[in-house]
Amino acid sequence: MSREALFDWCRTRFGDRFGTGLSVREHHGRDESGHFPPALPDAVISPETAAEIAELLPRCAAAGCPVIPFGAGTSVEGQVLAVAGGISLDLSRMDRILDVAPDDMIAEVQAGVTREALNAHLRDTGLFFPVDPGANATLGGMASTRASGTTTIRYGTMRDAVMSVQAVLPDGSVVNTGTRARKSAAGYDLTHLLVGSEGTLGVITALTLRLQPRPEVSRSYQVSFADIGSAVQTVIEALQCGAQPTRIELMDAAQMQACLAQSDVGLPAVPSLLIEVTGTPGQVTDQIALLSQAANDNGAVAETRCDTPEQAAAIWRMRHGAALASRASQPGCETLSTDLCVPISKLARAIDESRAWIDAAGLQAHICGHVGDGNFHAMFLCDPDLPEQMEKAMEIHARMVALALQLGGTCSGEHGIGLGKKRYLGDEHADTLPAMRAVKAALDPSGIMNPGKIFDI
Amino acid sequence: MSREALFDWCRTRFGDRFGTGLSVREHHGRDESGHFPPALPDAVISPETAAEIAELLPRCAAAGCPVIPFGAGTSVEGQVLAVAGGISLDLSRMDRILDVAPDDMIAEVQAGVTREALNAHLRDTGLFFPVDPGANATLGGMASTRASGTTTIRYGTMRDAVMSVQAVLPDGSVVNTGTRARKSAAGYDLTHLLVGSEGTLGVITALTLRLQPRPEVSRSYQVSFADIGSAVQTVIEALQCGAQPTRIELMDAAQMQACLAQSDVGLPAVPSLLIEVTGTPGQVTDQIALLSQAANDNGAVAETRCDTPEQAAAIWRMRHGAALASRASQPGCETLSTDLCVPISKLARAIDESRAWIDAAGLQAHICGHVGDGNFHAMFLCDPDLPEQMEKAMEIHARMVALALQLGGTCSGEHGIGLGKKRYLGDEHADTLPAMRAVKAALDPSGIMNPGKIFDI
Repeated sequence: MSREALFDWCRTRFGDRFGTGLSVREHHGRDESGHFPPALPDAVISPETAAEIAELLPRCAAAGCPVIPFGAGTSVEGQVLAVAGGISLDLSRMDRILDVAPDDMIAEVQAGVTREALNAHLRDTGLFFPVDPGANATLGGMASTRASGTTTIRYGTMRDAVMSVQAVLPDGSVVNTGTRARKSAAGYDLTHLLVGSEGTLGVITALTLRLQPRPEVSRSYQVSFADIGSAVQTVIEALQCGAQPTRIELMDAAQMQACLAQSDVGLPAVPSLLIEVTGTPGQVTDQIALLSQAANDNGAVAETRCDTPEQAAAIWRMRHGAALASRASQPGCETLSTDLCVPISKLARAIDESRAWIDAAGLQAHICGHVGDGNFHAMFLCDPDLPEQMEKAMEIHARMVALALQLGGTCSGEHGIGLGKKRYLGDEHADTLPAMRAVKAALDPSGIMNPGKIFDI
Repeated sequence: MSREALFDWCRTRFGDRFGTGLSVREHHGRDESGHFPPALPDAVISPETAAEIAELLPRCAAAGCPVIPFGAGTSVEGQVLAVAGGISLDLSRMDRILDVAPDDMIAEVQAGVTREALNAHLRDTGLFFPVDPGANATLGGMASTRASGTTTIRYGTMRDAVMSVQAVLPDGSVVNTGTRARKSAAGYDLTHLLVGSEGTLGVITALTLRLQPRPEVSRSYQVSFADIGSAVQTVIEALQCGAQPTRIELMDAAQMQACLAQSDVGLPAVPSLLIEVTGTPGQVTDQIALLSQAANDNGAVAETRCDTPEQAAAIWRMRHGAALASRASQPGCETLSTDLCVPISKLARAIDESRAWIDAAGLQAHICGHVGDGNFHAMFLCDPDLPEQMEKAMEIHARMVALALQLGGTCSGEHGIGLGKKRYLGDEHADTLPAMRAVKAALDPSGIMNPGKIFDI
């Protein structure tokens, strides 16, 4: 089938849900990554059912036409960019919440439902969906990139939250990879092969998600430290003693300064832990005691507790606005965000060495991280009129990745590989790349699914 | 390469670690499943390094010789039976604990280390490895079958506990599927493709495992109920309110009776929940309050608290001895164990209907389960002199599986597919079986890895 014949079929089959206009293609040719040039698809289709996608994919395979699943466009490694053209498959019309089963603490949703829409829907059930990457991404997109965020230390990543997916494979088969049972030992775990595969193996069309009970009590506070090492050591000791914070976030002085400029929370611009502890009253009291003990043992300078839910919300709004605050601190800047994740015992070293390289190069970068997971982001802010800044930032990023791998870590904790981390996947997984390629060839023999992402074929 | 030439090479390469004697073959031709006839391998090899296995596998592929990874032989679905002959690869010499990193709460072990050996080694670290299937299985075997057990409701299954594996693939490549970082979004999740693949894709040779802090306080108790439904509803309501028991086990009256005959714990032979709650003092107090409230709301008949660690240990010894106690209640019986897992809202119905079928058929069966996970086992006890009993048991098992699938559940919660559940995998995963077969063909094109297990090629 020629590309022209394919597009004729699409026009007939999808009517005005098939678009080739420049503005719709431009909207689908970029994401929230800071420095990739836009790469426009040739067309955009907005399917409404898995069956429609099942009709489409074998035709795209026959025509050799790329298919790029598109959720909310909030990916940050260029995952949705149509670097080889083809069709952007916009799943935002597949936004139905199919079922909520409170007794089983399960929700079934279509892939285009956003996490905020799901949580709004769950408001009266006493349950919520815990994975929180900051952006109001679609749940299909979050599964595709194996997203996580501030609550991972307590509730895990999308790997833990997704019980099953419905997906359309390139041969047009519609598969359900799991059941509604909380665990299963029945055959290969295709659910978790698809979670994190960034649309390169098939299109996730629906998900069965594990929900969590809304906690009875919640307390948030900030702790100031003289340096990063003391903050990290506090977290190590608290976790070893059985502390289970719901969020425990690290921000360096530069990141705090940028955030405070956009917020009125009135905290000092010093290395900080932002902590949220939730649960039953006794549990929360005990957790705070464990964390405070560890903080005192590691020379914490001061502690600011939130006395009201509003104060707590302000702190977490400030944290979630970190990337925007960094950008606002240098209007018009180009950005590059790193996503290293290392064993927590190596986290202080990884951050301190990174900071030293950044400062020695005279660059601006803000550092924040999900310290309990050993995951941190350095957001480089580069002047677009001084292209050597971005070059230097990329060179330092390469050094940071090499260090993380040497320390037993990974080049991507939660953003995925996309385009941005491709050059590093071979360093991290040279041994498993042939097996990844074999799996890709087995499930997508025509290579139509999101080509150019994760690895080259 | 001929089989004869292969075995000559093995004899030279492995010396007296290559065995073809009847007794060693018999030992490797059976597991703890109750009713499969033994199936002996042609030879047994005890490798000491991944490199040795990497030398062996391509030769086996060239000779078309099956390779069956063997741990402690405690699988219960015939996973280690050499149904097509070949080489049983006994990993018990690969029993070194490679590293323990307390700050990162990680252990790296060879595949032949047993969970009890690991926990003995961890005794002075304040940490432990939580997955507990009862048997003292090897950690490689537990990963291969995606094992879980009594503590899953709190700590998850092997899926959650395994951060990375080292594996030898049939082409002789030695791969490390992950890093020591607590999370990663770097490429396809081959770790969780191998976990649960029952030795059909490669040989797991080492594992990076997530450890847990040893809890400060632990309380165990038993609660009596008039019926299964009240016990299950208690668990549903407690979990929804945020209770996080470490163990919450259900036993029906028949199972309790069999267990009490082998124990002196002095409990009533009625439907029971056995509960363990652990954590900080305030957490444990609050958890017990939540669970007691739910139990009272659902008409709990009586509660027996363990006043000493010895009493608690006796209860859990009784629970872990359930299968042996069932067998002891009918000496010489043949057994068939089911492993259904359903959404918890359907658990009472699944158990009650199963019990009605069992009783109507005049069969003996004991039921116990990991109620928080919706997973339960009916252990059928059949007279070997009355073969129609096992036939009836298998017929009822088939009906139970059909019911579980209809209720949104799985044919295997934690034992795996092996030989025993193969006939049901097609019912449960007809849609994904072609993709599973494609992955198998991609990674094991010669089909040498544990042939005849999970599905036929």
